[in-house]
Order: sequence, then C-alpha cells, then structure tokens
Amino acid sequence: MYDTIIIGGGPAGLTAAIYTCRKRTSTLVLTMDIGGQTNLTQDIENYPGYEMGPGIDLMKLFEKQALKFGAEIKMAKVEKVRQEKDGFSVEIGDKTKYNAKTIIVAYGKVPQSLGIPGEDELMGKGVSTCVTCDAPLFKGKTVVVIGGGNSAVDGAIELAGIAKKVYLIHRRDQFRGDESSVEKVKKDENIEIVLNSVATEIKGDKVVKSVTIENVKKKEKRELQVDGVFIEIGYVVDNSMIKDIVKVNKFNEIVINEKCRTSCKGIFAAGDVTTVPFKQTIIAAGDGAKAALQAHAYLKGVATSIDWLHSV
Amino acid sequence: MYDTIIIGGGPAGLTAAIYTCRKRTSTLVLTMDIGGQTNLTQDIENYPGYEMGPGIDLMKLFEKQALKFGAEIKMAKVEKVRQEKDGFSVEIGDKTKYNAKTIIVAYGKVPQSLGIPGEDELMGKGVSTCVTCDAPLFKGKTVVVIGGGNSAVDGAIELAGIAKKVYLIHRRDQFRGDESSVEKVKKDENIEIVLNSVATEIKGDKVVKSVTIENVKKKEKRELQVDGVFIEIGYVVDNSMIKDIVKVNKFNEIVINEKCRTSCKGIFAAGDVTTVPFKQTIIAAGDGAKAALQAHAYLKGVATSIDWLHSV
Repeated sequence: MYDTIIIGGGPAGLTAAIYTCRKRTSTLVLTMDIGGQTNLTQDIENYPGYEMGPGIDLMKLFEKQALKFGAEIKMAKVEKVRQEKDGFSVEIGDKTKYNAKTIIVAYGKVPQSLGIPGEDELMGKGVSTCVTCDAPLFKGKTVVVIGGGNSAVDGAIELAGIAKKVYLIHRRDQFRGDESSVEKVKKDENIEIVLNSVATEIKGDKVVKSVTIENVKKKEKRELQVDGVFIEIGYVVDNSMIKDIVKVNKFNEIVINEKCRTSCKGIFAAGDVTTVPFKQTIIAAGDGAKAALQAHAYLKGVATSIDWLHSV
Repeated sequence: MYDTIIIGGGPAGLTAAIYTCRKRTSTLVLTMDIGGQTNLTQDIENYPGYEMGPGIDLMKLFEKQALKFGAEIKMAKVEKVRQEKDGFSVEIGDKTKYNAKTIIVAYGKVPQSLGIPGEDELMGKGVSTCVTCDAPLFKGKTVVVIGGGNSAVDGAIELAGIAKKVYLIHRRDQFRGDESSVEKVKKDENIEIVLNSVATEIKGDKVVKSVTIENVKKKEKRELQVDGVFIEIGYVVDNSMIKDIVKVNKFNEIVINEKCRTSCKGIFAAGDVTTVPFKQTIIAAGDGAKAALQAHAYLKGVATSIDWLHSV
C-alpha cells in the first residue's frame, strides 16, 4: 500500500513526485514515458528560471529531482483505477495491481496527428501542435494552421499578429469555433482561409519548406510555400481508466478546482488532463505541486476544511 | 493605455510578464520588490528544473526572462485599482495613474512577524515562516513552532514526523486550529505543547541555538535549546487597493477558479494573494502563466466560453 500513486511522468507527474517525496509520502509513479509533451519542444524559452534549451533536457532535470527525493518510477500503462474500501487500486497492462491511499492523475494528452508524410519527421522543425508555445518563433514568416475548431481559429488569429501570412486550412465548408472568433478570422487580412481542403504532405529538409493541400470536392492539389505548419485538430484523450469515478467535461478533461481536487475524495489531478485550458510546462508543474500538497494534506487528515492552511 | 498591468514582482508576477510579453501584449509591472517571498529562501530544492540554490538567484533569472521579452518594470506601491469605462486605472503612491485593459493581481503576502530580538537576523538561518518549504532540512533535530491556528498545528504535526522533538508554543490556553488537527497534535508523543506562552528572544550565531519563552500568566521564562524556529502566526494582507471590485474570502484572499479568473471580468490573480492554499514558488509561477494566458484570451475576445481553447 503506497501513500500516493502518480499516473504520468510529464512535468505535472514528476513535480507531484518531487513534492510528495519531500513530504516523505511513499510514492509510486506509473508512466509510459518520462517528460511527456515537453520532450517534443526543441527550445523552451518560457519556463521561468530555465534559459532556452531542449524540453527533453529540462525533463531530465525534473526526473533527477524526483529520484533524488526517493520517487519510485515504473514504466507501465495503467488500465484501470478502482475505488477500494481503504483507498484505490491501480491495474497496469500485465494485470498487476498496486494499491494506494491517494491518486494523482497526470497522464496528459496527446495531440491528434494528421498521419501524413513529413509530419513526424519535421515535428519541432517547423511542424508544431502548440500555437502558444511556438508562435513567437515565426515572426514575419508564412505559416499554415490546420483545423476548424477553436484552437485552430484562435491560433490563426494569434499568428496573424506575428507572422507575415497565415493560411487556415479546414476540411469542412464551415468552422466549428466560437462565432466571435470565426468572425475575427474572416475579417483578418493576414489570414487566407482555405475550406474543403486537407493537407496531404509536408515537405522540407532540416526545416519545413512547403505543405501540399487538396480540395476534397474538386480533388485539386496545391503546394503552399510555408515556414511553419500548426496542426490544431484536437487531442486524443483516453480516460477510460478513471472516468467512472471522477467527473469529466464534454472534452473528457478531468474537472478540478483551483486546488487540483477532483470530484472524488482522495483523487487529485494536474496538467493537460484537467479543465485548465493551457497546455504549458510551467502550468502543469505548478498544478502538480498543488495536487501533491493536497494529497499530503488529505493523508494527514487536515484537508477537511478548505481553509485548513490559512487561519491563525 | 497598457494591455495588461501586473501588480507584483514575485514569481507569479514575473512569470505572468514572461507570458504576456511573449504574446506581444503591452505590459507594465508595478511592484515594490523583485522576487517577493522567494528571495527569503536560502536554498530552494523543490523548484523543478532548478538545482539547489538561493531563491534570490532564481528570481533574478525570472526577471531576466521577463525583461528579455519586453516587460516594463516600475518600482511603485499601488494604492488603488478602479474600474473605468474601458478597463481599469491603477493609482500608485505618488498619485500617478496608469490605465490598462486587464489587470493581473500578484502582490503576494507577507508572513506576520513576532517582532522579537533575533528574528530578522536569523531568518533563513534556522528561523522560517514556511513548514512546507523548510521542514525537510530539520530531520532528527529539535524545533519550535510558534502559533495556534491551523498552519501552526498542521506544521507541528508535519515536523513531528521529521524532527526529533517539536515544541508548539501558543500564547492562549487553547488552539484555534481545526479540531481534527488539534486532536492529532495532542496525541503526538513527539510534540510538547506549551500554552499561555510567548517567544521573547531567538538566540544564535550563524544558526539558531535557542529560543526564550515566557509564560504570560506566571511570568516565568524558559530557554529552549532548538535548531529551528517556525513562526506560523499568519500573514499580513493589505488588499485595500482591490477588495471593492473582486471577491475575497474571510482571510482576505482573492477568490479564483482553476483558470485564475477572479469575480471581476478583466481581472486575473495568481500566487499567494489567491485562495490557493500553498505558498510555493512553482505554484505561483504556474498560476502566473495561467493568469497571463487568460488575460491574453480576454484581450483577443476569445475567452467568452470556458471551452474556448478546447474544441475542434
């Protein structure tokens, strides 16, 4: 029986481990990888205190700290979290079960991919799945945004203020983003909207050079010379392991409050799995620490009142 | 007219500035210091990605990044934030007014001090105002906790699992912490409770050596040989500048949701000023980033729906 099992080994999970272990809370981290989405960023310039460097190096520092304080990390795919009489059981791929008094859910999200040639090869070399992270790197350049929902539409608006020109490619004949954003995107002279079209190939060598798009009605192809390709078609979320016992929203994100509590007593969540809309390393790390301190307070029996750490 | 005025220059405020400036949002930071409470920590070992070092050095890295991205930082005491027709005005000590479309509140909190000899001189040398931060440094040692509310009582419980012996000193004849915690503290054999007593002096040279306590009824003095003194008597919060326009709780903390929104449209908050109960650098930084990205979304007019960054 562990005090805490952390599911996920990205910035949220590893920070949670640093914090639970510093509290001498026995901690098992179950994860499929170390570093999560942060590993995919070539140069992180917006993690405070970290001078620009590869995401994967930053994540190695996180891991080193978690191990230093005594975290036990096991590579495994979690299949199911169940509520038991005295806590929770966590079943992994080979059917082994681990037990814990508290759970911190931090398994992240994986951006949906297009599955076209060039996409994987040029990821981080002009291909990005995060406007917030990478837009500033495309000042004065030409970029394409692929998608039709809010993240694509809002991403195009943001990029239009930075890049020289933005193509917004959507496979349908109208956008699914919020009306206010769609109106803005239509008015923006920097944005060329290309509807009924899909990307079929990304070309480049060390960096992106072009993207080929095809009109799905006319079957016509066109090659756009661009420096960047933002794929904003949503995330793959598989929360079947836990959605029976914690409340999720319509995007399958785990609902939390500002203290990283979920709807289930003893389960806390942090990072991209939650309703916090911004997928950033520093935000995941901050909430990982909150979740860990809440779990610790719960274990000590002092978190019954929301004010437990305040009054004098 | 700035896009965003950030009030406070600690980890929350400086991270918010990194994020607003990377979004090319014009940003003014008004603050009385750079670094806030983090400056007082001699060795930070729990900020992920930062190998153990002085808090003040970490804060200098934050400042450097904020300046690199274009933040304007002005040393000033903010007196009043007012709602105006097209945003907000912020008045500082010399009556100058600045205007902005959005406000990020991150002015932190200052721990209440005892005002006794040795307290300031030995701060960070055995005297601490944060059990969460410093408890692990007192493994096998003797410490005293001063205070009678939840933070003192819960702090004593936590320290009792790490230190050899814990004295809990309280000036009244009973504690004001939650009953469940008070029961635990009374049962713990590692904790010696000293009621009706106040600390009158902390002695030491390079590190804390003893604390003198006085029984306020019997007027008897006693010198306890200790390695650490945790002052847990609450915080000084002066939110008169803003409490007319944002909702605060009974501890004068600004109520936020998990996305760092306050009750007032256009005002966001992060760090120690908020209802988030943990006063940690990484948590303040994470929420600073959230507040900045929310402010940016609000400025772009895309934050009307809570789901604005999710759907595809």
